Amino acid sequence: MSKVYDIAILGASGYTGAELVRIISSHPQMNIKSMSAERKAGQTMGNVFPHLRHLDLPELQKIEAIDLENVDLVFAALPHGVTHGLAKELPALTKLVDLSADFRLSDPEVYKYWYGLDHTAMELQPKVAFGLPEFYRSEIAEAQITANTGCYVATSLLPLVPAVKAGVIASEDIVIDAKSGVSGAGRAPKENLLFTEVSGGFQAYGVGHHRHMAELDQELSKAAGKKVTPTFTPHLLPQARGIEATIYVKGEASEIHTILSKHFAAERFVEVLPFGDIPATQHVRGSNMCHIGVKADRLPGWSIILSVTDNLVKGASGMAVQNANLMLGLPEAMGLEMAPLFP
Amino acid sequence: MSKVYDIAILGASGYTGAELVRIISSHPQMNIKSMSAERKAGQTMGNVFPHLRHLDLPELQKIEAIDLENVDLVFAALPHGVTHGLAKELPALTKLVDLSADFRLSDPEVYKYWYGLDHTAMELQPKVAFGLPEFYRSEIAEAQITANTGCYVATSLLPLVPAVKAGVIASEDIVIDAKSGVSGAGRAPKENLLFTEVSGGFQAYGVGHHRHMAELDQELSKAAGKKVTPTFTPHLLPQARGIEATIYVKGEASEIHTILSKHFAAERFVEVLPFGDIPATQHVRGSNMCHIGVKADRLPGWSIILSVTDNLVKGASGMAVQNANLMLGLPEAMGLEMAPLFP
Amino acid sequence: MSKVYDIAILGASGYTGAELVRIISSHPQMNIKSMSAERKAGQTMGNVFPHLRHLDLPELQKIEAIDLENVDLVFAALPHGVTHGLAKELPALTKLVDLSADFRLSDPEVYKYWYGLDHTAMELQPKVAFGLPEFYRSEIAEAQITANTGCYVATSLLPLVPAVKAGVIASEDIVIDAKSGVSGAGRAPKENLLFTEVSGGFQAYGVGHHRHMAELDQELSKAAGKKVTPTFTPHLLPQARGIEATIYVKGEASEIHTILSKHFAAERFVEVLPFGDIPATQHVRGSNMCHIGVKADRLPGWSIILSVTDNLVKGASGMAVQNANLMLGLPEAMGLEMAPLFP
Amino acid sequence: MSKVYDIAILGASGYTGAELVRIISSHPQMNIKSMSAERKAGQTMGNVFPHLRHLDLPELQKIEAIDLENVDLVFAALPHGVTHGLAKELPALTKLVDLSADFRLSDPEVYKYWYGLDHTAMELQPKVAFGLPEFYRSEIAEAQITANTGCYVATSLLPLVPAVKAGVIASEDIVIDAKSGVSGAGRAPKENLLFTEVSGGFQAYGVGHHRHMAELDQELSKAAGKKVTPTFTPHLLPQARGIEATIYVKGEASEIHTILSKHFAAERFVEVLPFGDIPATQHVRGSNMCHIGVKADRLPGWSIILSVTDNLVKGASGMAVQNANLMLGLPEAMGLEMAPLFP
Repeated sequence: MSKVYDIAILGASGYTGAELVRIISSHPQMNIKSMSAERKAGQTMGNVFPHLRHLDLPELQKIEAIDLENVDLVFAALPHGVTHGLAKELPALTKLVDLSADFRLSDPEVYKYWYGLDHTAMELQPKVAFGLPEFYRSEIAEAQITANTGCYVATSLLPLVPAVKAGVIASEDIVIDAKSGVSGAGRAPKENLLFTEVSGGFQAYGVGHHRHMAELDQELSKAAGKKVTPTFTPHLLPQARGIEATIYVKGEASEIHTILSKHFAAERFVEVLPFGDIPATQHVRGSNMCHIGVKADRLPGWSIILSVTDNLVKGASGMAVQNANLMLGLPEAMGLEMAPLFP
Repeated sequence: MSKVYDIAILGASGYTGAELVRIISSHPQMNIKSMSAERKAGQTMGNVFPHLRHLDLPELQKIEAIDLENVDLVFAALPHGVTHGLAKELPALTKLVDLSADFRLSDPEVYKYWYGLDHTAMELQPKVAFGLPEFYRSEIAEAQITANTGCYVATSLLPLVPAVKAGVIASEDIVIDAKSGVSGAGRAPKENLLFTEVSGGFQAYGVGHHRHMAELDQELSKAAGKKVTPTFTPHLLPQARGIEATIYVKGEASEIHTILSKHFAAERFVEVLPFGDIPATQHVRGSNMCHIGVKADRLPGWSIILSVTDNLVKGASGMAVQNANLMLGLPEAMGLEMAPLFP
Repeated sequence: MSKVYDIAILGASGYTGAELVRIISSHPQMNIKSMSAERKAGQTMGNVFPHLRHLDLPELQKIEAIDLENVDLVFAALPHGVTHGLAKELPALTKLVDLSADFRLSDPEVYKYWYGLDHTAMELQPKVAFGLPEFYRSEIAEAQITANTGCYVATSLLPLVPAVKAGVIASEDIVIDAKSGVSGAGRAPKENLLFTEVSGGFQAYGVGHHRHMAELDQELSKAAGKKVTPTFTPHLLPQARGIEATIYVKGEASEIHTILSKHFAAERFVEVLPFGDIPATQHVRGSNMCHIGVKADRLPGWSIILSVTDNLVKGASGMAVQNANLMLGLPEAMGLEMAPLFP
Repeated sequence: MSKVYDIAILGASGYTGAELVRIISSHPQMNIKSMSAERKAGQTMGNVFPHLRHLDLPELQKIEAIDLENVDLVFAALPHGVTHGLAKELPALTKLVDLSADFRLSDPEVYKYWYGLDHTAMELQPKVAFGLPEFYRSEIAEAQITANTGCYVATSLLPLVPAVKAGVIASEDIVIDAKSGVSGAGRAPKENLLFTEVSGGFQAYGVGHHRHMAELDQELSKAAGKKVTPTFTPHLLPQARGIEATIYVKGEASEIHTILSKHFAAERFVEVLPFGDIPATQHVRGSNMCHIGVKADRLPGWSIILSVTDNLVKGASGMAVQNANLMLGLPEAMGLEMAPLFP
């Protein structure tokens, strides 16, 4: 009989919380023991998210009511800045996958610059792994805390890091034009996220200044061995899920394709398409997959890399479960094998 | 070690074919052994449906190349009229779940009226079960052929049949106003199904005359013990998946709710919502669930029943797998436990 | 030289306010002199609605700052209950088109039942016309106040009233299954109106109890000469604009079609389609048109009437301008001739 | 009394044809005298496009049946390669606005490379103007033939040409990441344009090789006075209308903004937003407007220019009417003043 691990989900009333529940509901070795949601404490999850009403789930509670001694692993989908305090009081035997940005940045100055907050838990850094499992598998397996990567960042880094490391693309002049479905903006009611405002339209946002730049810089610089600052522009797509990154780089397309194909050959969740094929967000929807395409630009020496994920799965909750599997010593793909939902 | 059953899928290049593959890909006791697709024979499924490219699947073949002796069960997602011939030559030990209308109607005159074809396989009727598992479980378990119900029909019959049988609604004056996502119309390119034609708009179709009426009449008449002919109007929703039926009936809402709640209390895939709650198609998307709501109209003696399913799952391929599980002696819910995908 | 009338728009920061501006911006004899918006006072309209930024418009003000003596006509797109007070202090020479429900119901008890408010301006009733111009043209031309009809109501009454009056449909057992785009719910941020909640899904709301029932009852009863209470169920479509009503009635379809065709033959904004044709909301989008279809049900003696409008135009701001034209003695169609926007 | 010009529309059954009709239907000095549509000859426009059924329009004919002597101006929305032959036989007093690419490229080698056809009407070049009215106003006023610009091209060139000419951006390393609504792909039924394939998803296409590159090169090179070959990648948005171009350039953002603001200060259809504001396609929908935003990248010396249009209006039929106005000596904005449709 396999061990079943007890899980807590903090911040369960947002979309990443609901997505954790969806995924874990068919995970053979995880059991959701407790869930918190500040404003919806006292309600059932089926009331907050009717698509989950058939599941037998614990009631939503205030975060103070959750006993973290009692669970093996905590998923924290809380606002930036909140998880610091929580992590400092984490019981020694409880693991934490943090879906916020609180532990993604190793430099407290950078954290303060982008998030406007002092980093109050730097002393925990030795216990923290950066949560992109394809690159930090062994660190994650050892860590008590994993800092789940941001959705734009994961989608961009998956093709870029191996190519930068292999030296087949220049680390200068990387332009990342990224587009995300609306679910990335969360469930809090805002005028600009109303159906009427978003449907049938498209626009950029955060142009020239978006928090995910900090993670991109950190990880690309690590890969390149020198400071790398890509251009990065996010846009809002009139669709619920999906991120696409069109990445303009200097490098030979066939070399890039060869390197990426080799690098990801054995990866369950990263598929490098045949040379010249173009990925589409609808073909990874609801799954933990990342599809990557590579094509030569007509300008000699330039290539275009295209990468797609579901921002709520591979870009958030699926990646979180993948990280949790590593931390608990379970098979990495457990509970994440669902095929994409198309159409 | 559990037995794994070999499966063939005929007509795999349509949306119900792809959905069968999606579902079966995580079914622990089914293995896809062969697949046919007339116009796309010779191609890989990953080429025809890129969202399935990560799966290890047999190549698409012409139907003649499929050896039906060699498999335990066949799913046929073929055009109406084609499965008759196929069924007549079905090997004695091979089971068939037919997703077309070919075996749904027990009266050959009715079949001819609605489909314009002679029914050429009436002699097989003794081996056929009507494929709505919540009502025909034991017949399906015994049958060699199961006639999977139409999507509008399943969504409407689930709440209506128990209520009609219990006598809590009148069998006269039933008005079914139904709406379906576009995937119900299939993948063949047609002008009226283009994104540009459908998006941001809504309209009825098949008003006063739609083939699903034949099944509705047959099954409601059986339930009532007399001829029942509901009014039924389908509409096209600007969304890919989901059917909603708003059903106007004569009867007391609280009685209807009580009957349905009791009837479906133990059903895995039918959820009767608390009295007065309204179901939504997005809350069953991608799942095998049917959500049912009941509310009193302001007109005394009238009630409104609301029923939603995902037309490709509970309305087609999920129901087909549920039927196949019954026919193979497997647990009915096996491979169908996935939670809905929302948002 | 034609006279140009000065106009005020109260409540300009909602969708019907913006739509009034869009329409009036190309009206040859109306000039927007002042606009109010409580929470956005001090801002420009181009800031609140960037699609209107090319227009030369007055700044948004608090309602107290608007001088109603100074304008010929006021459009009030204010919350229910607010216009009563305003109307009582309306200068004698200023006309008012009220887009709220405040003056639609002639019975104060009914108003109180549905809106939970005392009607405080019943003494103005002699100056009020019900604002469905196709039926109340001459009353509107004489009135100081016109009570613009609700969007569901206009879409349903246009085909029903002439048919009920002519006696070709029974006034009992009318079932109106109506569906609306999301813009009908306004621009205030609410969780259930987020893109992520609405897109790709469909559901009913207000089942058995919706405020528009009061207007439907009042006008249908007037047409029938006896109390009529139709069944009416609204639904939320995943699209920004458009209302469709599928109306089930007892009556001969060909008779209904003949009556409606004759009745609307000379109407600029109501198009009765050829017998059996089905209207679609996308074909009236952005225009002041109503398309009506009639089809026989398969049940002898039952017919299905289908009616579509753009809820923000013919269902609100277009109808309001049509009413204003009548009140100002201008050609009824002035400024409303724009063709629908498709695709 | 103003003269009314007689107009022919060739290829009226496509979306740009329908859009020409929509716009011209409220143009005070154009009258649609004849319309062709090969496969739909003999049908009424109201049958082919129900949103236009209220208009009094000539029947669709075969192109041979259209008398071009008899009209003042022809809009040709025909497949590439067809207009060459037509233009050679154009009556001397008839003007032509060609919406195809047939006369956009002045170099026949380039035309052959991108369109795979010999250019058979090079001798007409002296009579041809490049149809971007903001830049070629006087040439268009003199020309017998105007080559309407491609939709991606117009959206990109509007901000780029003045900036390149002024020398405030480098003509090297221009990256244009462009996204278009589905209507740009036309009305012919194709699997990849079905609602089910496109909705809820996003992807690039034509990566590294798209016909609009030829026009971009030609016009940017002309502006720069040397060969310019930008990187250009189109993508397909899940919306019917709208193009957005995110353009990465080397140059100071404030300088670029100043130049563009001055250049377009007097233009009716180009709005340069306040520095740092971001345009959105939904805010120009249905209108002839182009909204342009400029923002500094965080990388010193890099700027991001954002430009949006409605591909069917400013990117096609609206621009065509603007060109026709110039050619007929009418006010350039006549018939094009309609405000955008939002939401």
